[in-house]
Amino acid sequence: MRLGTLLLAWSLAAFAGVQAGDGSYPAPSNVRGAEYPKIHPDLRVTFRLKAPGAQKIQVVPQNGGLGKSPYQMTRGEDGVWTVTTPPVRPGFHYYHLLIDGVPVNDPGSETFFGWAKQTSGLEVPSQELDFYEAKPAPHGEVRIRYYHARTTGTLRRAYVYTPPDYDANPKARYPVLYLQHGSGESERAWTAQGRANFILDNLIAAGKARPMILVMENGYATQSNAPPSSAGRGAEGFPELVIRDLIPAIDSAYRTLADREHRAIAGLSMGAGQALAIGLANLDKFACIGGFSGGLREFNPKTAFGGVFAEPAGFNQRVKLLWLGSGVEDRFYAPGKAAHQALVKAGIRNVWFESPGEHEWQAWRRHLADFAPRLFR
Amino acid sequence: MRLGTLLLAWSLAAFAGVQAGDGSYPAPSNVRGAEYPKIHPDLRVTFRLKAPGAQKIQVVPQNGGLGKSPYQMTRGEDGVWTVTTPPVRPGFHYYHLLIDGVPVNDPGSETFFGWAKQTSGLEVPSQELDFYEAKPAPHGEVRIRYYHARTTGTLRRAYVYTPPDYDANPKARYPVLYLQHGSGESERAWTAQGRANFILDNLIAAGKARPMILVMENGYATQSNAPPSSAGRGAEGFPELVIRDLIPAIDSAYRTLADREHRAIAGLSMGAGQALAIGLANLDKFACIGGFSGGLREFNPKTAFGGVFAEPAGFNQRVKLLWLGSGVEDRFYAPGKAAHQALVKAGIRNVWFESPGEHEWQAWRRHLADFAPRLFR
Repeated sequence: MRLGTLLLAWSLAAFAGVQAGDGSYPAPSNVRGAEYPKIHPDLRVTFRLKAPGAQKIQVVPQNGGLGKSPYQMTRGEDGVWTVTTPPVRPGFHYYHLLIDGVPVNDPGSETFFGWAKQTSGLEVPSQELDFYEAKPAPHGEVRIRYYHARTTGTLRRAYVYTPPDYDANPKARYPVLYLQHGSGESERAWTAQGRANFILDNLIAAGKARPMILVMENGYATQSNAPPSSAGRGAEGFPELVIRDLIPAIDSAYRTLADREHRAIAGLSMGAGQALAIGLANLDKFACIGGFSGGLREFNPKTAFGGVFAEPAGFNQRVKLLWLGSGVEDRFYAPGKAAHQALVKAGIRNVWFESPGEHEWQAWRRHLADFAPRLFR
Repeated sequence: MRLGTLLLAWSLAAFAGVQAGDGSYPAPSNVRGAEYPKIHPDLRVTFRLKAPGAQKIQVVPQNGGLGKSPYQMTRGEDGVWTVTTPPVRPGFHYYHLLIDGVPVNDPGSETFFGWAKQTSGLEVPSQELDFYEAKPAPHGEVRIRYYHARTTGTLRRAYVYTPPDYDANPKARYPVLYLQHGSGESERAWTAQGRANFILDNLIAAGKARPMILVMENGYATQSNAPPSSAGRGAEGFPELVIRDLIPAIDSAYRTLADREHRAIAGLSMGAGQALAIGLANLDKFACIGGFSGGLREFNPKTAFGGVFAEPAGFNQRVKLLWLGSGVEDRFYAPGKAAHQALVKAGIRNVWFESPGEHEWQAWRRHLADFAPRLFR
């Protein structure tokens, strides 16, 4: 049963899906036909690379449940390097290989845009959780939408999830959730790393979430009149871009319910800060706001976000949902929970959600699965 | 003028787009903020990588116009390696870095699925051609469509281009071109490497092509009852998948004109062989067929493709367009042209198209731009 679901999801990578005699199988994040990285039934992971000319190779986990320290690969006589980890945590984990000191991708892995480049990622299936797997439920589309933004003076690209019934109901209109990635990631992250489309497919099929549109844009946006910024920076134009360009482009291209009651914004880490800042500064545009693991350091409810929390009664009437959450091992857990408590004390209604895990995608998948069902009710 | 168009296209990579004092600029295929690879006004290209611990690094062109031989990078005192090539040809060129003998990606480049893995690619702008650039013309969407295929017993993914007016004309129906990638590539190739969506946007805006849907699927498909295949193989189930699963899924999900006169199939290299084989074996499904640089070796018009060319009069009446083409430096040029001539001699009406270049994406972009306007007239 679980295996059926897993194989269905695995097949997206279009690999042969051969299970070895010891029950190990290629990671679902591998490219087609790549046997390694290989996951064992006890969730140990074996990495393997042919590199006869290399002097030293390490597997470097970048965050999350793959481990805290680099794994030293061992050279075989045939120039093939291997290492097997202890059991790792389920979820999506960024990693790279360090070959003679140079950080590079694992050719066996698909690439995922994170850490401001295309890097390797490992999807480790869970024995307990499948809410983010591709199931036989009807699937929505993920649409790559190009639009011109005046704020940046450029053509930009949004990834837009439309729910399974969108094209079949040409008169229906839908609420919209704007959903932002974290630092160093891109508009591709919430579907490729986060599987937001499958999470919504499953919630909608189960009647747990209202059919909605997800809009995932790139949080990096430099105003056209701003000085050139260096690598990795350049998010300063994003708030203006959302209000001036993105929302009008989406409301023009899709059958949206184009009012504040049917528009939400959320994000993770850097995107949490952006979602809170943009949402709370534009309550005429958004009635629901979510912060996943971020945006709440040194939080003072009297002064935070332009003093928007100063009048609790008005705020509580206006804002249908203020959702805050974090993995319990996340470095943003303590400041997030403190902010939640300060808001409660200040009389501001808000939801606090704790998930297992640290600053990692498996937590943000859980956040979305808790957040989305609360929207637009 | 050209620069404006280019900068518009560049911005898709969301990089700062700083032009240096010498007129050089980051390749449009770079990740956001990456300064290298850098393109000079005379189309020399400078590659750069920080790798203090490496012993030897080469830039390896994988095919096309970036050059025939690896470029040796030179180590600076700061552990930064650089090399500048002679002027290269415009277009899209696969490449990788060889670090101490290990083939890896350039962290400055976006990744492109080719050679059965995610590899680096370099987009070199042309001074003469902009038919594949993002222009201010209205843009269609590229939709990621999931569907279940009985042939493989798996969930699969198609990339589907819908023309700019698709959602605005909810009663309109559209013809469909099934468009296949080459060996080692994937359903992502025609948009990421080929820019098929921008080519169609521009042709449609100029009134040169009829608005149409493009369907780009993965040519690798193993029948569910077939034995597991090894890496890179596994295309044997694709013809059955197209007829049994893909066409019905597309005709069910999109407003297509679901008859043979409004359905075409084409592909490049391995995909040319697939398109010719599938199209010519299913003339009840396809009236237009295109082979871009492939599928015609050891061609005998009497016996090829099940003898479909044996009765020219019937064939010429039935098939609205048989299009064959190749770059003049392509190894498939001679067999392709010979097949064309043999077909002419046999009385089979067909179009032969020669483009500059070899077995590379710049040629296939030109092929699509010649092929698409001839369809569905």
